[in-house]
Amino acid sequence: MALSVASQIDFDKSGGVVPAIAVDFANGRVLMVAYMNREAFEETVATGRACYFSRSRNRLWRKGEESGNFQVVREIRLDCDGDTILLAVEQRGDGAACAEGYESCFFRKLDGDAWRIADTRKVDPAKYGPGYGHKKSPS
Amino acid sequence: MALSVASQIDFDKSGGVVPAIAVDFANGRVLMVAYMNREAFEETVATGRACYFSRSRNRLWRKGEESGNFQVVREIRLDCDGDTILLAVEQRGDGAACAEGYESCFFRKLDGDAWRIADTRKVDPAKYGPGYGHKKSPS
Repeated sequence: MALSVASQIDFDKSGGVVPAIAVDFANGRVLMVAYMNREAFEETVATGRACYFSRSRNRLWRKGEESGNFQVVREIRLDCDGDTILLAVEQRGDGAACAEGYESCFFRKLDGDAWRIADTRKVDPAKYGPGYGHKKSPS
Repeated sequence: MALSVASQIDFDKSGGVVPAIAVDFANGRVLMVAYMNREAFEETVATGRACYFSRSRNRLWRKGEESGNFQVVREIRLDCDGDTILLAVEQRGDGAACAEGYESCFFRKLDGDAWRIADTRKVDPAKYGPGYGHKKSPS
């Protein structure tokens, strides 16, 4: 099943991965952008939980594997040229898709001459342990 | 102004461009994903209209330059690791962000073993002339 639908995704265009946007299923807010290779896509379809491919770690990244902030996938869309995936998810755990503890990774807004934090942190990511987040999010 | 804020965007990570997601300012729907290099970002900030970098054409792509479907930018956000931009836009013209005439490029939904069209086309892109869209969208 996932085999045939995966074949319509243009993984070759950008070296084996495509961007995958996760939005909140309830309100549509963009939570994060990560990447999927074919294996990550197929696992996501098979399990119903978002699985990405971490380019920095060079391995599958089962979202929430360290923090418990996993994502239940409610809908998957593909764009017109087949090179970007859109997931509508229920963000579980502490409700923080961002490794810095915010609901959304897009918590900074351009305000004149600076990027300013526009959201309130939902959780202190220190609770997930000292190795969590690896300084940078694992996209 | 744009110079200092652009320096916080990690254009080097993916060869000089970063993904830029455009969402509808009014309802947050994801309309499209394209790419920006530094010049496109700076033009977007300076003009308040979305300007992308077309990887296939290898030049700046002023969204709507052929179709009139330009985008007025109301808000710009940056993600936690500085490698993805989020624009909240007013989609002008025919209200179709997608070169295939749909409001959103994400008009196909995974339904069992197939991607099925889940949206209604807003406009027949043939109206923009025979060269429009270049078969593929210019991302």
